[in-house]
Amino acid sequence: MNSASRKPAVVLVSGGMDSAVTLALAREGGFACHALSVAYGQRHSSELAAAAALARTLGAVEHKTVSVDLRSIGGSALTADIDVPEQGGAGIPVTYVPARNTIMLSIALGWAEVLGASDIFCGVNAVDYSGYPDCRPAFIEAFERLANLATKSGVEGAGIRVHAPLMAMSKADIARAGARLGIDFSATVSCYQADAEGRACGHCDACRLRAEGFAAAGIDDPTRYR
Amino acid sequence: MNSASRKPAVVLVSGGMDSAVTLALAREGGFACHALSVAYGQRHSSELAAAAALARTLGAVEHKTVSVDLRSIGGSALTADIDVPEQGGAGIPVTYVPARNTIMLSIALGWAEVLGASDIFCGVNAVDYSGYPDCRPAFIEAFERLANLATKSGVEGAGIRVHAPLMAMSKADIARAGARLGIDFSATVSCYQADAEGRACGHCDACRLRAEGFAAAGIDDPTRYR
Repeated sequence: MNSASRKPAVVLVSGGMDSAVTLALAREGGFACHALSVAYGQRHSSELAAAAALARTLGAVEHKTVSVDLRSIGGSALTADIDVPEQGGAGIPVTYVPARNTIMLSIALGWAEVLGASDIFCGVNAVDYSGYPDCRPAFIEAFERLANLATKSGVEGAGIRVHAPLMAMSKADIARAGARLGIDFSATVSCYQADAEGRACGHCDACRLRAEGFAAAGIDDPTRYR
Repeated sequence: MNSASRKPAVVLVSGGMDSAVTLALAREGGFACHALSVAYGQRHSSELAAAAALARTLGAVEHKTVSVDLRSIGGSALTADIDVPEQGGAGIPVTYVPARNTIMLSIALGWAEVLGASDIFCGVNAVDYSGYPDCRPAFIEAFERLANLATKSGVEGAGIRVHAPLMAMSKADIARAGARLGIDFSATVSCYQADAEGRACGHCDACRLRAEGFAAAGIDDPTRYR
């Protein structure tokens, strides 16, 4: 398929393995992918550097990083001075960033409108996840409904579809899909507190879920630990 | 009512007359108001300066400005190099900022979660307005529904309510409400292309709607024109 016949889509790319697989699936599905990263005051910038590199290697048409200063509202271990816990407990954990996916999808929606794109992809997953409320199918459906009421293209145009192709996949399924798609997992950063070189802690919930997923899939995980 | 007995609310304050009246109504309704402005790459900063001053004079507990760089996605006369038209035409006008209200409400939602607030106020209005899709009742209802699926407090806590007290008011009604509440309208900036001193152009859709509203209410409009 040549690029002129591809439909444009906005794909949220964080630098982690889930959004890398999502981007590769959107590309495989025939979309011209406009990769979007949101700099929301993450603890480390290695995640954003990984996102830019993945967008390039996975064939995105372009990559844009939009900044929104969520540090100024605080409230999460990922953006404020709260320690990242070593393992998940009951309920929604402190690594939850208030309204993060709502904010990131909103920015993706704005860019989709500007591009005339009807499709938005994000890598949320509700199987092997940290229990965040904004990763569930009902959230994605509600966002899509909102998007179609909120926008010019929803009201006057072709409408907006929000794709979450990993929603029902286990972490092992995601690792297998990524391997099939030829993703270089050493270029992805999953850890909640990776260092400046993208090396993982090996102890947080994100590290644990990733390691278990690769192990279950029988695939070697090239994560670099510090 | 002393401040300790007031429930916290996040109130979106842009610096215009609508959000000033919204803030005053929320305060009158017994809320401890945390005023939020979003710097999204507006053409002028006089709007944000007006927002900060209004938050102070209208009794907000605090005022925060969160930056999100919507200039990088472009697509609107308010954020990109597109001329602001002198009057509205058919359909959604070029001053529409893609997904602006979705993005601003998302940030308000994030702050509400951090504050433990269940209430968000915004000054959208679907009577004398520019025809933006994200100003209609169905949009606000869909956002509230999303908010309750997206957040910790929606899932585990008291839930989120999104208030749009001006929704069904005419611009004349809003001017009258503001006068009753003692708002100094000279401190508000409505114009889409106000200059650095907050002086209005007198020609854009926002100027026209404001002038007609004050005239219909029989209230003197202290807008400064350049």
